[in-house]
Amino acid sequence: MTTTRRSFISGAIGFSAAAAFIDAALAATDADNLRINADRLRQSLEGLSVFGRPAGGTFSDGVSRVAFSDADVAGRKYAMDLMRAAGLDPRIDAAGSIFGERAGSDRSLKPILFGSHIDSVPSGGNFDGDLGSMAAIEVMRTLHDHNVATRHPLRMVIWPNEEGDFTGSGGATGALTAEDIARVRNGMSMADGIRRIGGDPDRLPEARIPDGELRCYLELHIEQGAILEKAGVAIGVVEGIVAIDEYAVEIRGFANHAGTTPMADRHNALLAAAKLIEAVQDAVTQEPGRQVGTVGQLEVSPNAVNVVPGRVTLSVELRDLSAEKIARLGGEIQKRAQEIAQQTGTGISFKRISHDPPALTDPMLQSAIESAAKGLGLKTMRMPSGAGHDAQMVAKIAPIGMIFVPSVGGISHSPKEFSRWQDCTNGANVLLRAILLLDGENGGPG
Amino acid sequence: MTTTRRSFISGAIGFSAAAAFIDAALAATDADNLRINADRLRQSLEGLSVFGRPAGGTFSDGVSRVAFSDADVAGRKYAMDLMRAAGLDPRIDAAGSIFGERAGSDRSLKPILFGSHIDSVPSGGNFDGDLGSMAAIEVMRTLHDHNVATRHPLRMVIWPNEEGDFTGSGGATGALTAEDIARVRNGMSMADGIRRIGGDPDRLPEARIPDGELRCYLELHIEQGAILEKAGVAIGVVEGIVAIDEYAVEIRGFANHAGTTPMADRHNALLAAAKLIEAVQDAVTQEPGRQVGTVGQLEVSPNAVNVVPGRVTLSVELRDLSAEKIARLGGEIQKRAQEIAQQTGTGISFKRISHDPPALTDPMLQSAIESAAKGLGLKTMRMPSGAGHDAQMVAKIAPIGMIFVPSVGGISHSPKEFSRWQDCTNGANVLLRAILLLDGENGGPG
Repeated sequence: MTTTRRSFISGAIGFSAAAAFIDAALAATDADNLRINADRLRQSLEGLSVFGRPAGGTFSDGVSRVAFSDADVAGRKYAMDLMRAAGLDPRIDAAGSIFGERAGSDRSLKPILFGSHIDSVPSGGNFDGDLGSMAAIEVMRTLHDHNVATRHPLRMVIWPNEEGDFTGSGGATGALTAEDIARVRNGMSMADGIRRIGGDPDRLPEARIPDGELRCYLELHIEQGAILEKAGVAIGVVEGIVAIDEYAVEIRGFANHAGTTPMADRHNALLAAAKLIEAVQDAVTQEPGRQVGTVGQLEVSPNAVNVVPGRVTLSVELRDLSAEKIARLGGEIQKRAQEIAQQTGTGISFKRISHDPPALTDPMLQSAIESAAKGLGLKTMRMPSGAGHDAQMVAKIAPIGMIFVPSVGGISHSPKEFSRWQDCTNGANVLLRAILLLDGENGGPG
Repeated sequence: MTTTRRSFISGAIGFSAAAAFIDAALAATDADNLRINADRLRQSLEGLSVFGRPAGGTFSDGVSRVAFSDADVAGRKYAMDLMRAAGLDPRIDAAGSIFGERAGSDRSLKPILFGSHIDSVPSGGNFDGDLGSMAAIEVMRTLHDHNVATRHPLRMVIWPNEEGDFTGSGGATGALTAEDIARVRNGMSMADGIRRIGGDPDRLPEARIPDGELRCYLELHIEQGAILEKAGVAIGVVEGIVAIDEYAVEIRGFANHAGTTPMADRHNALLAAAKLIEAVQDAVTQEPGRQVGTVGQLEVSPNAVNVVPGRVTLSVELRDLSAEKIARLGGEIQKRAQEIAQQTGTGISFKRISHDPPALTDPMLQSAIESAAKGLGLKTMRMPSGAGHDAQMVAKIAPIGMIFVPSVGGISHSPKEFSRWQDCTNGANVLLRAILLLDGENGGPG
């Protein structure tokens, strides 16, 4: 089947009103019927999963495709080959992002950008980022196969190093500093990493996408939580990406012999840490809302069976769509920490080491995603994204929208990460349909 | 001054009762006046401190003289040179213990053994073990310088690897298994370590001291706690070395994304660990007594800021002179752990990985130490040893006695470990005097 979908603008140029009407009706019908190829999407995800797969493993053993690694380089080549099969001519910008563009019929319209990332955490899964990236290619290929023309240019992107420091989306939005790209992680500076994947750190400013250049950015992603699964809802409409405050906490007690130091004479940093961990839990859960607070990292010194712990460092991370709420909770936790310090004869200091503001999605894009899902007979719910995404970077320069699909058991950043193939297909179809709806706004099928 | 101290046995052979009486009186006077050389003891400790001292440091920077290290080998050579200066002919047994013996006048009497160790923990202090070892040499040298003869043979010892696995005292008491000496720590098996210090692991059984071969074993040691200092008492008379139960605890939760996992859906192993740490504190402090309980070691997995901890392992160590009491407390803590597991949606398992029974000191030796201190005008108090010592191994084959001197601030296993020179001198003089009192029992000066 070959379908030509015409582009429409209010007061169409070169078309009569009647022709425009007929075309609009045809196009609406075509758009309603257009579906991505579910088998091909699955094959793309399975094909990508090979790059970074543990030796001797299978798809269900997950992937370690850490940014700038050999597996990342190989995975990117695979993705670019798929992009070519979708009729795109992939180009790599100075930050290492892979872009592929499909021209629109109306040169006055701004590009609709969509995509995700294919780098993973160590021992991660085959859906985080991969789904949004492979679905973006699949959307492009579906449009290509059906010769569907859009009014807006359509641009897809695979952002590098989402799991590390948002190298691609940071580069595109001017967020990367010289310090960032000089910083060495896993034995490699970001600059060298960018070089490894075909970018050019010396020309990083060229990667910057000017504010307002894009019509919008859409990203399909797995939820990475279990809210959709529990609710039995196919599509999450993301209200925004939460604000994150991260604190580095140091507890200074006094290390002493566990056999010779009476209980009453101890300055036990780990006992203070235990009370603080409970205080974080209490503070975060004492009021209604979706805020979360986590002590995920903790180190004990000297960490010996027979020594009263003298020093503990730990992380406190708070997330919510409301930056004000987590700031207030951080204050409450610090107040409790001072009581704990007094009670345990220790010193406790907090340092806020990062503060990511919330990135709210665009209400109009939320509605477009809901309409797209409704047209496909899929239930939706609005929800925050507790995880960070490239979209939060892009929010600085363009309206953003995000589509979530259920994660089985809410498991992510794990080889056990899985989203049912039907849910992946649904997500890709919602992405396709939302793009077409946005393309049709002010004159197209809506 | 040269004094000949005669030996006495009830019904002395070859001496008239009168001569014996006069000699006894003389000897008693001599023993009363005999003192170790305080300056020399300090010089020995300062001299020993060089081996394992941090580069560019001073005495107050502590020492890392880990067993079997180059510093340990050099420190042992230094000690053996001092022993030679004290008229001893040091010999190394199969386990690597250094012995030095001074003959007694009565061949029917068993040797009085005394000493300690000179190995340290990493970044330890210059008194733990060192004081008892250098004082033992100083006692020998004092007797040598004054030509004091004793009835009993006097034997001093420097036990290797007290801080690791009691290699010396374990070898002497048959406690070391083939498994123990094959075990690799810090990249070296104990067998190779024994070879490094001049022992012969293949002939380990030869190091065994038969039960009943020794009259007794005495050890002078720093308290490593602050009880004596707080009480203003110069000499601690140790009632026994506490029993120690050590548990390895594993808490199994579920690692998940800290941003996407609602608080109510978490199986947070570190939150469970925090509650358990508090439960240990509560259980141990809820009843009177000197028992202590410590969570000293704790590891979080995956230990990432943005991941809900999925697994925690930690140690629980309980100490008291009563093995029954710590067994009961261990049971109580395990009961509370099961409540915590239920409350937090985790699994908690306990494994008792070691159980050291208490090693009680001999009441007669306690009295001898008290008499010795009293004769020197020093206040004493009876107390448990919360720390383990070589004496607890020797308790299996001979009566033991231990002398404690104050640790400033109760600090030990730290470069800040310090005992005032006067306290060190007092301890060494109490050791000397207790040996002479024991030597005189049943006929000598008492």
